[in-house]
Amino acid sequence: MSETKTLASYIVTSRMESIPADVRHEARRAIVNFMGCALGGSVDTAVDRAIQAFAPYAGKPTASILGRSERMDPLHASLMNGISSHVYDFDDTTPKNYIHPTSPVASALFAYASANRVSGRDFMEAFILGFEAESRIGNAVYPAHYDVGWHITGTAGVFGAAAAIGKLLKLPEQQMIWAIGLAATQAAGLREMFGSMAKALHPGRAAQNGYGAALLAQAGFTAGEHGLEGPRGFAAVQAAKYDLSKITTRLGADFDLRANTYKPFPCGIVNHPTIDGCIQIHEEHGPLPQNITAVRLRVAPLVMDLCNQRGITRGLQGKFSVYHGAASGLVRGKAGIQEYTDDAVNDPQIRRVRELVSAVGDPSITEDQARIEVELATGETLARFVEQSLGNVHRPMSDKQLEDKFRDQAVTALPAAQVERAIQLCWRIDELDDVAELVRASVPAAK
Amino acid sequence: MSETKTLASYIVTSRMESIPADVRHEARRAIVNFMGCALGGSVDTAVDRAIQAFAPYAGKPTASILGRSERMDPLHASLMNGISSHVYDFDDTTPKNYIHPTSPVASALFAYASANRVSGRDFMEAFILGFEAESRIGNAVYPAHYDVGWHITGTAGVFGAAAAIGKLLKLPEQQMIWAIGLAATQAAGLREMFGSMAKALHPGRAAQNGYGAALLAQAGFTAGEHGLEGPRGFAAVQAAKYDLSKITTRLGADFDLRANTYKPFPCGIVNHPTIDGCIQIHEEHGPLPQNITAVRLRVAPLVMDLCNQRGITRGLQGKFSVYHGAASGLVRGKAGIQEYTDDAVNDPQIRRVRELVSAVGDPSITEDQARIEVELATGETLARFVEQSLGNVHRPMSDKQLEDKFRDQAVTALPAAQVERAIQLCWRIDELDDVAELVRASVPAAK
Repeated sequence: MSETKTLASYIVTSRMESIPADVRHEARRAIVNFMGCALGGSVDTAVDRAIQAFAPYAGKPTASILGRSERMDPLHASLMNGISSHVYDFDDTTPKNYIHPTSPVASALFAYASANRVSGRDFMEAFILGFEAESRIGNAVYPAHYDVGWHITGTAGVFGAAAAIGKLLKLPEQQMIWAIGLAATQAAGLREMFGSMAKALHPGRAAQNGYGAALLAQAGFTAGEHGLEGPRGFAAVQAAKYDLSKITTRLGADFDLRANTYKPFPCGIVNHPTIDGCIQIHEEHGPLPQNITAVRLRVAPLVMDLCNQRGITRGLQGKFSVYHGAASGLVRGKAGIQEYTDDAVNDPQIRRVRELVSAVGDPSITEDQARIEVELATGETLARFVEQSLGNVHRPMSDKQLEDKFRDQAVTALPAAQVERAIQLCWRIDELDDVAELVRASVPAAK
Repeated sequence: MSETKTLASYIVTSRMESIPADVRHEARRAIVNFMGCALGGSVDTAVDRAIQAFAPYAGKPTASILGRSERMDPLHASLMNGISSHVYDFDDTTPKNYIHPTSPVASALFAYASANRVSGRDFMEAFILGFEAESRIGNAVYPAHYDVGWHITGTAGVFGAAAAIGKLLKLPEQQMIWAIGLAATQAAGLREMFGSMAKALHPGRAAQNGYGAALLAQAGFTAGEHGLEGPRGFAAVQAAKYDLSKITTRLGADFDLRANTYKPFPCGIVNHPTIDGCIQIHEEHGPLPQNITAVRLRVAPLVMDLCNQRGITRGLQGKFSVYHGAASGLVRGKAGIQEYTDDAVNDPQIRRVRELVSAVGDPSITEDQARIEVELATGETLARFVEQSLGNVHRPMSDKQLEDKFRDQAVTALPAAQVERAIQLCWRIDELDDVAELVRASVPAAK
């Protein structure tokens, strides 16, 4: 059996009607989350520099870059959308394979839809199938592939973008097989790049090269027929151990969108239960920051390995400081993009509370849990135990929380009224006659 | 020690004056061979289809595509040059690592030089350094990397293009380190694609993405500092076994251009000794084809595994038929691109002789050797033993033979007078004030 052929055939023939309603809703949630991340990240220096590097080489400016007033050709726009939506590491994650799955697929699709008329229904059909192809290919090679050092968001992402754009191009099966092969032979991205801008390049190139793979296949540019399962194909070359049946088992019945999760806070995920609990204390008790005299945390030991930074002065350091996360939650009742700026890290109220936080690694606390005690000048102690961290698959962010996350990010790129319009259009994306309407709401007025 | 930093520092600081004369001459030979291959391959359907796929997305047409009248931006021109120069598998090879080394580097450089003023001296300095970086990185991971299924021309090639373009951009050391990292994280290409157009995509994307890596680094887009040697870097992720000292040992003293080889015939390399011997018989004795009554070959057993195709009707099959190679050598005294067309395979004289050829695999014959006996109607027998095949590192093609190979390919793309001018400019490339002069000689007049 050829998994490449089976997958290609499924992508070519599957229709929106056969996709369950809960999966379609989860797809809308993924789009809401993606768009907020892309808008929030669009103002980052990494995007500025990538645009600066490639603007002289870009083609006719037929496509929009989400959150930006510059326009480029759809391939370069895919690249920029991929960078912006991942640069703050705030986009979605499928914990079963650690892919950030939406960025490579949606980055290419929005670039396509900004230059070509696409209905919301076709867009979402392509998105769901691209997401599924990407995640299943990731499942087949995870964990060996990830463990050796591949950034699976890049390597699996290129398949997702190829499948999604290939679906919109209505590629027949043979060309879809080539598109998968052309994706396989461009799968790239190393974990060695973590901590640099190149990490965000991975979903960007995945979007761009997956889009390009579909275009090449459409033009009759041939590839090997067994890109996934061949003896020198993706799985055999890029994973010491793999299980190709994960690509095809219950295809069309099981959907990995159901396993997708959204980060509530733009920082190391091990900090999330602490932040979550501190926000709960803020919301229930509203302690005045100046009345806090001590904060004691009991956290999973891994937190102390990864997020033990003290004496910090820069926003980026805050992402790896459980103390800063706790202080932000207690002082501001939130820990969004605005709490991880240099300004926020140097905010005197946050800094004062941060310096009162102590933390102990405790093997009885899981990575989804945290135990928090806040001591007040009144002698009172506010305590909270977080059993399941907000945003994990057992306690997903609500639609409302996703909207708040969207707003918090998008205001850096767009006027508030436009942000609300973009949110509403994201939720209604399936019904749009032309996704360009949403794209227009997601770019600032030209300067 | 950081091999990435050592290599970056060498590329940044090395000057043409410190490159030995024999290496500079070998570099000219590599350019002559490359340009002939790019011109010959430029008319292939793979190039047509790639241009068709990407023309709507290409940027300002500031760059030439070798052998073509279309123009594109330099990044897309790099891609097309890479495809055309490798599509017939006739470009150079470094047997120590099986890279086709010139295509990724020169494809990017000629695209750059067609859009930017570059002296021949600077061009060749960048070429030699790019070639060296690529080949050394290949040496470090060969053979484990190749054996598992990576097409090393793609994976190592992207480093060569990044280094060469980075050199022309005069990147300082930090940016050259980023360019190497950005190349590492885009290294791709699977041997599963062999036999399809996607094989030629590999040096094309290597050229394009290496060029892009240099542009990103120049704009300050950061990457990991240890792209080669890091625990999740290129070598650790893409090779089960590697030796990083091969990147840095005797850097600036040893040059892999000295180990470069050029294929005399555009077919399976195991056929080469047979063809070589048959051409020698043709040149010395000039037997009339109609007088040949039998041809007996004793060849390495591998020839019978790989190139035993009989009853052939298509040019592509001829590449895997030792019988066709022998007949072409005897009848025409050559086996160039023109002998591997459908027409040549169906040429009645060649077909008649081909059907008289028999071959026996003999373990005492090496892959560089062949024993040939040609029986004539007169009763006479012409015999030849080839000890070292033409084109291997012990018996390199002469400059004159490289010129003949160039002509044989280039006439498919350019008028004969222009071909001669291009050859002469290739040999004088170091002396050119502006390499654009050679580029102009290497594209047809606009239609």
